[in-house]
Amino acid sequence: MFEQIGLIAKRQHAGASHTLQIVINLLRHRRLPMLLAENSVEALPKHGLPVANIAQLGLCCDLVIIIGGDGTFLQAARQLSEYNVRLLGVNLGRLGFLTDLHPDDIEVQLDKILSGEYIQEHRFLLHASAYRGEQLLNQCDALNDIVLQKWNTPHMFCFNTAIDGHLLGSQRSDGLLIATPTGSTAYCLSGGGPILHPSLNALALLSIFPHTLSNPPMVVSGDSEIEVTICLEQNMDAQLTGDAVPCQRLQPGDRVVVKKNRHVQLIHPPGYDYYATLRDKLHWWREP
Amino acid sequence: MFEQIGLIAKRQHAGASHTLQIVINLLRHRRLPMLLAENSVEALPKHGLPVANIAQLGLCCDLVIIIGGDGTFLQAARQLSEYNVRLLGVNLGRLGFLTDLHPDDIEVQLDKILSGEYIQEHRFLLHASAYRGEQLLNQCDALNDIVLQKWNTPHMFCFNTAIDGHLLGSQRSDGLLIATPTGSTAYCLSGGGPILHPSLNALALLSIFPHTLSNPPMVVSGDSEIEVTICLEQNMDAQLTGDAVPCQRLQPGDRVVVKKNRHVQLIHPPGYDYYATLRDKLHWWREP
Amino acid sequence: MFEQIGLIAKRQHAGASHTLQIVINLLRHRRLPMLLAENSVEALPKHGLPVANIAQLGLCCDLVIIIGGDGTFLQAARQLSEYNVRLLGVNLGRLGFLTDLHPDDIEVQLDKILSGEYIQEHRFLLHASAYRGEQLLNQCDALNDIVLQKWNTPHMFCFNTAIDGHLLGSQRSDGLLIATPTGSTAYCLSGGGPILHPSLNALALLSIFPHTLSNPPMVVSGDSEIEVTICLEQNMDAQLTGDAVPCQRLQPGDRVVVKKNRHVQLIHPPGYDYYATLRDKLHWWREP
Amino acid sequence: MFEQIGLIAKRQHAGASHTLQIVINLLRHRRLPMLLAENSVEALPKHGLPVANIAQLGLCCDLVIIIGGDGTFLQAARQLSEYNVRLLGVNLGRLGFLTDLHPDDIEVQLDKILSGEYIQEHRFLLHASAYRGEQLLNQCDALNDIVLQKWNTPHMFCFNTAIDGHLLGSQRSDGLLIATPTGSTAYCLSGGGPILHPSLNALALLSIFPHTLSNPPMVVSGDSEIEVTICLEQNMDAQLTGDAVPCQRLQPGDRVVVKKNRHVQLIHPPGYDYYATLRDKLHWWREP
Repeated sequence: MFEQIGLIAKRQHAGASHTLQIVINLLRHRRLPMLLAENSVEALPKHGLPVANIAQLGLCCDLVIIIGGDGTFLQAARQLSEYNVRLLGVNLGRLGFLTDLHPDDIEVQLDKILSGEYIQEHRFLLHASAYRGEQLLNQCDALNDIVLQKWNTPHMFCFNTAIDGHLLGSQRSDGLLIATPTGSTAYCLSGGGPILHPSLNALALLSIFPHTLSNPPMVVSGDSEIEVTICLEQNMDAQLTGDAVPCQRLQPGDRVVVKKNRHVQLIHPPGYDYYATLRDKLHWWREP
Repeated sequence: MFEQIGLIAKRQHAGASHTLQIVINLLRHRRLPMLLAENSVEALPKHGLPVANIAQLGLCCDLVIIIGGDGTFLQAARQLSEYNVRLLGVNLGRLGFLTDLHPDDIEVQLDKILSGEYIQEHRFLLHASAYRGEQLLNQCDALNDIVLQKWNTPHMFCFNTAIDGHLLGSQRSDGLLIATPTGSTAYCLSGGGPILHPSLNALALLSIFPHTLSNPPMVVSGDSEIEVTICLEQNMDAQLTGDAVPCQRLQPGDRVVVKKNRHVQLIHPPGYDYYATLRDKLHWWREP
Repeated sequence: MFEQIGLIAKRQHAGASHTLQIVINLLRHRRLPMLLAENSVEALPKHGLPVANIAQLGLCCDLVIIIGGDGTFLQAARQLSEYNVRLLGVNLGRLGFLTDLHPDDIEVQLDKILSGEYIQEHRFLLHASAYRGEQLLNQCDALNDIVLQKWNTPHMFCFNTAIDGHLLGSQRSDGLLIATPTGSTAYCLSGGGPILHPSLNALALLSIFPHTLSNPPMVVSGDSEIEVTICLEQNMDAQLTGDAVPCQRLQPGDRVVVKKNRHVQLIHPPGYDYYATLRDKLHWWREP
Repeated sequence: MFEQIGLIAKRQHAGASHTLQIVINLLRHRRLPMLLAENSVEALPKHGLPVANIAQLGLCCDLVIIIGGDGTFLQAARQLSEYNVRLLGVNLGRLGFLTDLHPDDIEVQLDKILSGEYIQEHRFLLHASAYRGEQLLNQCDALNDIVLQKWNTPHMFCFNTAIDGHLLGSQRSDGLLIATPTGSTAYCLSGGGPILHPSLNALALLSIFPHTLSNPPMVVSGDSEIEVTICLEQNMDAQLTGDAVPCQRLQPGDRVVVKKNRHVQLIHPPGYDYYATLRDKLHWWREP
């Protein structure tokens, strides 16, 4: 089934070290070759495993197990998205949307997964490129969301949004959030955005505190190219972020182009039910 | 291009009669054969045209021109969805989302359309079936939305929602709205739902005044089968409606199954821009 | 402290009968005279207490204990608001906003309250009068909310709202909700309305699924007179309700005048904390 | 009626200079003594008027006319709130909520106001004090709103909110907005907050993109003392602002205390109607 397993663990977290040891024991028992990510070595100094960088994990492994919160998983997913490798998330305590293997069940569940009993799911990433005139300033990837947001200022900024070359509109607001279905249950949800089922090839656009009469969330095709242009002639300070990682400070006239890029393959334990996770995490549809 | 044109006009509306006459004159000038829908005869008693029922329009025409508001268009679209015919909407005053040909522009625009200059767009309908045990109680179609709503009572009712056989959750509320992309700019928008681009194969689920802690709108694949079951052991009174047409009173234990059914082909004038319509209709992203 | 205690219990509810018996025993032990509401007799057939109607309870008692859910409490509060009597709510299971004495704590808490250790709080009611021309059609009271809502129809209706004689605006919607601070945590909350602290002399106005560009909730003085006039020349069917009790079917041209009316005095156990109830009931500010 | 008039005008704005000249001519014609604010001198270099600082305006004038947008008015109101002086706002183009005298009507309206025909209205300000332990770090005033917001980071921060010493709750979010009725139509409205009528002695609390299950806006008494404490043991970066002016960078453990402070007296032209302004500005209750 899986021939070489990569291991990534959250740093400076006692639970991560403990769970990593359990996973290593399970894989040793099955005599499966492992590679430990070099950024995870400090989680378990006496591991006795070959160490590799992320690119080597991506090239050599067919499964990477990520032990940590959604943040650890998001970073690994962005880094590994250019390789043909499956990702399995183990959470450290509370259930995550991306890390749906719980430490308490890990022995039973991982055994099933390594025996080929699992659900595989495709999730796409976004790619954002920031331009000043024709010059590419910077670019970033996101599994959850690309956000343009005010930065270091209490003041809104003005920008125009176009979808596939068609003007959607101009607005002043605290920013614009562009979420994948994966990201629709993250920051997007805090802003009252809709939940997009992970199977959808769609993006949610959500304005952050817009200074407009009406501004419902908009859901467009995942194949859309979204271009946001910062209005000229304003004092503004804004930042482009991908999965809450700062990417590029923006000036009037700058353009950001966002489109679907690579994808990752997630592995879920057998019996995985997206709606059950929703109900558990969001207390969705639960009465006061 | 088009060989036989069907005509439907809103009844008891002076503007509809006037616009119908203009359309007839234009089509006569082009020597195009016409069929007037029998439910539209009273709009223009001295029309001198062959009269046919909706089924005959669907069978014999390759284009049906509908003169009226979105309500007239919705009804025609439901009735004609089983035929292979294109639909063109002419509004009577204010721009509609479905009737985007304005009476003032009709001569120029219709001329272009009849010459083959137009944009054709696919829109799907929903089909709802209500069951009591195994018995099919009633069924209805909708281009905009299927709604289960409290009826004749100030009290909420309880129901369970499942998507493709997976429980989404149980709730008490004033009802559930299931909207197509077409319907996402109609009743769904009044309830704070997201706007779904018409090209999406997706449905929006929106709870109506839910008695729950949290209940964001949910967007699922347009191929989903949604089953709503009314909870047992409650006093309730609810109604199933399709495009705001009452379809079936519901009792505890009743089930409603909603899925995508047929589709219709809309014709837009050349230069049609969905986002421009959004901006015009919704004052979207316009400042106070 | 309290010289005569009235008792009201929810009918056809085993828990209510059980709790009623406990309360009677406690009061007997303190040799406090009691009056049992005649509508509560069937809750405890062998009670051996003098029976009285609600008016007599209001006239003769200085404390009325209400055993049931918020619905039982709301009805009793409306009926007793014209008398000078304090109200104490005992819930049957889950904590209510109005019935904050739990059956498990009742012996200790009631003992404290009867010894004079309690928090007293003032809550005002609304009064709605429906007019057709100059004719008063009907009137009703509400501790939670007055609602004008569509009835027996999927269609919105049009109405104008004026506050203290100043036009607020005209809208088409599924209705209008006017909530007291007490009602702000009830139906109003399902519609996304704000929570008004019970000490506020204020009303929340919330449109139900409005067909408008923008329609934020509005909070006005509790001394405001709100007049809603149903637009002429429309087919509509709407109902006026007070605390979810139907009061009057409305026609085009009908007017409803809503203003503050009487008030009631609620008794809370010592240590009562409104914000703690909010956190418990609403999971307010709790993370996913 | 008014014996000495202060004048404040927005700098570097041609319209402000033009309107200021008109106002000066009107006041000269009525032989009313004037004082020009020293920060407004550059708006009209050849004014020939006595110049004074804001404190002198506050001490010597009984009416100050402010020519500019809501921003100019907010600053003047904060500075003048400690003096017993009335404020009149003249907008420069679009109607503002605070500056409701339009340049086109100014001659007629100002004449009426100076003859004693006006509506006077009381608006209160908030005062925020930031503490580190017992040390007062900084303080600021606001006519619109006090905001605690993330700063220079895409990450939420954790804080606890207490009202009059009672814990409301703990949350992680992008911040907390505390708005006066005056501010309820400003930034608060962008976040979906309720509109509070200016006559209300109330505050709206609105969470900014809260990471919580449910978090409706909360309206509390204007006499409430609100204390926000930044949680310990987190990496965070947040800023306290008053009317969108940065006031104090906050650290874990810092406390901010917000309460009502002074008030200002606004002058409106006769016939002023708050709800008419709402309808004009917000297109409130206007249909798509």
